[in-house]
Amino acid sequence: MNYSFAPLTKNYESSAVRDILAVIQQGNVISFAGGLPAEDIFPIDAVKSAYEKVFASGKGSLQYGATEGFKPLRDAIQEKMERKGIFTNPDKILVTTGSQQTIDLFSRVMLAPGDIVLTEDPTYLAALQVFRSYGASVVAVKGDEHGMNPEDLKAKIEQYKPKFVYVIPTFSNPDGKAWSAERRQQLLKLCYQFDVLVLEDDPYSDIQFHQDEVYHPIASYDKEQTHVLYTSTFSKSVVPALRTGWVTGPAEVLEMMTQAKQMNDLHSSSIDQQALYHLLCDFDLEAHIKLIRSVYYERMTMMKEYLNQVGPGLFSWKEPKGGMFIWVEGPKHIDTTVLLAEAVKKGVAFVPGAQFYVNEPKLNTFRINFSHSTPDKIKLGMDRLVDILTSVPVV
Amino acid sequence: MNYSFAPLTKNYESSAVRDILAVIQQGNVISFAGGLPAEDIFPIDAVKSAYEKVFASGKGSLQYGATEGFKPLRDAIQEKMERKGIFTNPDKILVTTGSQQTIDLFSRVMLAPGDIVLTEDPTYLAALQVFRSYGASVVAVKGDEHGMNPEDLKAKIEQYKPKFVYVIPTFSNPDGKAWSAERRQQLLKLCYQFDVLVLEDDPYSDIQFHQDEVYHPIASYDKEQTHVLYTSTFSKSVVPALRTGWVTGPAEVLEMMTQAKQMNDLHSSSIDQQALYHLLCDFDLEAHIKLIRSVYYERMTMMKEYLNQVGPGLFSWKEPKGGMFIWVEGPKHIDTTVLLAEAVKKGVAFVPGAQFYVNEPKLNTFRINFSHSTPDKIKLGMDRLVDILTSVPVV
Repeated sequence: MNYSFAPLTKNYESSAVRDILAVIQQGNVISFAGGLPAEDIFPIDAVKSAYEKVFASGKGSLQYGATEGFKPLRDAIQEKMERKGIFTNPDKILVTTGSQQTIDLFSRVMLAPGDIVLTEDPTYLAALQVFRSYGASVVAVKGDEHGMNPEDLKAKIEQYKPKFVYVIPTFSNPDGKAWSAERRQQLLKLCYQFDVLVLEDDPYSDIQFHQDEVYHPIASYDKEQTHVLYTSTFSKSVVPALRTGWVTGPAEVLEMMTQAKQMNDLHSSSIDQQALYHLLCDFDLEAHIKLIRSVYYERMTMMKEYLNQVGPGLFSWKEPKGGMFIWVEGPKHIDTTVLLAEAVKKGVAFVPGAQFYVNEPKLNTFRINFSHSTPDKIKLGMDRLVDILTSVPVV
Repeated sequence: MNYSFAPLTKNYESSAVRDILAVIQQGNVISFAGGLPAEDIFPIDAVKSAYEKVFASGKGSLQYGATEGFKPLRDAIQEKMERKGIFTNPDKILVTTGSQQTIDLFSRVMLAPGDIVLTEDPTYLAALQVFRSYGASVVAVKGDEHGMNPEDLKAKIEQYKPKFVYVIPTFSNPDGKAWSAERRQQLLKLCYQFDVLVLEDDPYSDIQFHQDEVYHPIASYDKEQTHVLYTSTFSKSVVPALRTGWVTGPAEVLEMMTQAKQMNDLHSSSIDQQALYHLLCDFDLEAHIKLIRSVYYERMTMMKEYLNQVGPGLFSWKEPKGGMFIWVEGPKHIDTTVLLAEAVKKGVAFVPGAQFYVNEPKLNTFRINFSHSTPDKIKLGMDRLVDILTSVPVV
């Protein structure tokens, strides 16, 4: 039979992330490709205790729940938001199956074919896939290490009248940069001026290496919650298997997203939501986040020292101030997709940077993840990677 | 700010299910409205043990998982499918966040504005909401207690060239009917003839009261898995809070749905999926399903006896052969939405039938759920309901 799919499926892109997972599963390959947190420090005992409390609370815990999410969890998220300078209330918090579902539900209620979304370049590729799957076109705004260029942002807002601007301002995926406070405020000011929404994707801000630096979420400047949808997740600070994220922002938008979520899956796992609530009550998550920071900083530093061996001038990178990734730019004549094939043969993997680009991809970039591999594996994998990088001919 | 939502959001319907949940939460109301399973027989000890096994399996259990679902769970689902006469393989099983997500993902990859979906009338209202949210129009096929009328189905396939036919052939929601084997085969034959897909929604077939009767899923007749997408869930046979369902069918359609799911939420909770796998290994689910059947049969019988008190001729219903609902039709002059307001005042709730209809709603119908309330509550609630029904004036 010839299956006649909806026309929008033509915009679905072959799944790079799944291809990456396939690489990971090859026996001897040490993968710096995926965006996986460190398994070896997962707080499994605390997670286990949290689930025990759910079952101890009785059979009612196993019944259907509300689409908006488990109310005590939303209360706890509100408190977490306050500590980030975002003042909201539980009625304006929707629990989602990870922040991926926020990106999807928000796109679903906002986007129609022909609409425009403005983004950074490079940016999170699975977000690009979602926007395009609804028929939207993505337009990249120029930027530098401090964030989007306000002049270009203004020009593109005026030219394209975008539905929203999508940004990861704190320890971006893939390039790890953190926006300056000034750029955050300039973006919001322009969005106020032209009435454009912002989708602020903030999975990594808890993983901050230098505590003397301060990064306020863009949403914290949007005091009345009129223009910014802020999404984050417990996948990085607790464990990914919980698949629990949330979104807060304008009530009217959240109401529409809640209707979409009801049609999409009724609600996210309520056992997981209840367990997460107990975990937030009983477990010192702030102490655990400190542990994550120090472990990731150590691993990032290890990787950095290996990269330093490659020699100056050939490959360049900026030391990330947080997050999970180092973004590397090589000499202009190389194609890191070709390099990856060679690397996998030698037992190490990274993600070629091309697919994160909206405009012309820089074929000479790649992303490595420093959170997932233990120091032993980092040594082994980085030895292999340095071998490959140093053998790249200087043209 | 004036939020400019996507045009398709105009098709979102105010959420009847959430309104129902709001009614349930009013203190003294005994609700026969929702479609909730019996909490008092939830296998909480088995569920608890299953989660313990997940945590005992190590920290890897808390990492990100595959979009398709946890492989050992898909293997177990394949065996379950075989027992229903559906021969598939784990590569053609996608785990979803309940069968609601199957309905949504399938609609997302198939439907564009202007497309037609054929359904029974009445049918599951949250499915109607999904189809319409993608801009499709729903056309009802005539039917009776044995299933869709094949002549009308053929005529409507020829007239409307539908994208698919949506059916709940075994203990339908809302009217509890079970299709005859003949009607199931006639539907599939027509779908083969005109190359139309079938979405077979089968959440209730395990809850079958009379074991001498046999209901083969329509998918079991689709030997090559070319035309039928079959979806079911563990929400009714285990517990709803797990939010775990699945879909099997044509590989090409599942591949597209998997891409959509990856954009939608990356994957469903893998802790829950692993727990469910352990539960299926260690717990006698078949024995538990037998318990569910006998408890639900007893409750249905209690309710039936109360309804018998209302007196012949005024209200009529068919005794369901399984599932969770009794569908009641009253005298033509009544409007059960008006009656509900009165019922809630007296402390009992049901769902007015109107919203389940595609064509002209029968305002004189309502649905009551027999699974959720304990015998004590059934007595109290049905006393109240019988009072209300017997006071309806005969015109």
